Amino acid sequence: MTTTQLSPTPRTTVTRGRSRAVLDRDALLAVLAEGLVAHLGLATPGGHPLVLPSAYAVDPSGPDAGGTLYVHGSVAAGWVRGAADATVCVTVTLLDGLVAGRSAFHHSMNYRSAVVIGTARVVDEAAEKERALGLIVDHMIPGRSATLRAHTRKELAATAVIAVPLEEASLKIRGGGPVDEPDDVEAGVWGGHVPLRLVAGDPVPDADAVTSGGPVPPDVVARARAL
Amino acid sequence: MTTTQLSPTPRTTVTRGRSRAVLDRDALLAVLAEGLVAHLGLATPGGHPLVLPSAYAVDPSGPDAGGTLYVHGSVAAGWVRGAADATVCVTVTLLDGLVAGRSAFHHSMNYRSAVVIGTARVVDEAAEKERALGLIVDHMIPGRSATLRAHTRKELAATAVIAVPLEEASLKIRGGGPVDEPDDVEAGVWGGHVPLRLVAGDPVPDADAVTSGGPVPPDVVARARAL
Repeated sequence: MTTTQLSPTPRTTVTRGRSRAVLDRDALLAVLAEGLVAHLGLATPGGHPLVLPSAYAVDPSGPDAGGTLYVHGSVAAGWVRGAADATVCVTVTLLDGLVAGRSAFHHSMNYRSAVVIGTARVVDEAAEKERALGLIVDHMIPGRSATLRAHTRKELAATAVIAVPLEEASLKIRGGGPVDEPDDVEAGVWGGHVPLRLVAGDPVPDADAVTSGGPVPPDVVARARAL
Repeated sequence: MTTTQLSPTPRTTVTRGRSRAVLDRDALLAVLAEGLVAHLGLATPGGHPLVLPSAYAVDPSGPDAGGTLYVHGSVAAGWVRGAADATVCVTVTLLDGLVAGRSAFHHSMNYRSAVVIGTARVVDEAAEKERALGLIVDHMIPGRSATLRAHTRKELAATAVIAVPLEEASLKIRGGGPVDEPDDVEAGVWGGHVPLRLVAGDPVPDADAVTSGGPVPPDVVARARAL
């Protein structure tokens, strides 16, 4: 039960559960490496928050001090236009379990959650954009981007890549069983937790891939086996 | 590949992937019923967005037209004070698979994502607050709240419950394999997808629960088996 805070500022300072703090960049990078979906928070022109799921990737040696987190989207998406040069929040949460406390109050979840706040930079430079898109593909299926043709100019033009510096971030981790009231423990109420994890089924080839695409590529097999 | 939009307004109108729209409240409620973690988006006093993971529950017959979504937090948490009467966004995403396209551009994920936007109401009335907290426990482990003692006054005072009307919402769903360029299909590149799902391990009793708590309760066993 810990929380990482990297260069904590008032906006990434965890105000609850300080006992859950881990001041460790490697732990942050490990959570970002394991997650598959980020939840991207933006302020819309109307001023209200909008939270959208997104694929993402991290370049630990990206152009920002501390590394760079990348998300992408269609240049036609409204949120992409709104994100440029705005402050965004990118949250990646891994759900590790359900915590069945001995009272409703002490029910909880086990999780690891990374929160990154930063100014969104639209990536214009072609080399950085292509590298970021390759990282996003390889984040989903490690090794896959090297097996694919290059992006066409049209595809690159249709895709917006947003970079967020990995400078201002916090990590909150909860693990194990419930922390209950002594009276409830003494009363013999059952308490414990249910571990949860994401698993992959067998890869499903497209109909065309079955007839002409050959066997499932080793990168896809390895990805499914690793989950 | 569909998107639900319930009473679509400009801020919940999906501007990309209209083909993924489902105009169906039951589909929205099904995604909210299956999800375990919501990502709550708030605008902080500094004006930047903040996205936090949270337990939640839905009361389809709650006080709001269309039903009510509840999240909870410590009254000491900064975000709780900021959320009162503000517009918030609650997003629940179920990750169903990785889509290995025949080009980087057509890589994607299969998912079901519900986005609810509304004015956060702090629940003050004791009966609604206790019912909401019971729903949040039962959303994690169906049937569990009936087996637990009532909240103490101190516990209720320490817990803030936030209600968001289920009026303005959208649902985006992607399923199946990649949608690739005909040239890439003809070239015989492999394409397909990897199904993903969340599974539970065996319930883990606390040390005290093993000695004095009796067997794992049937509600906890059923929850683990259902995942």
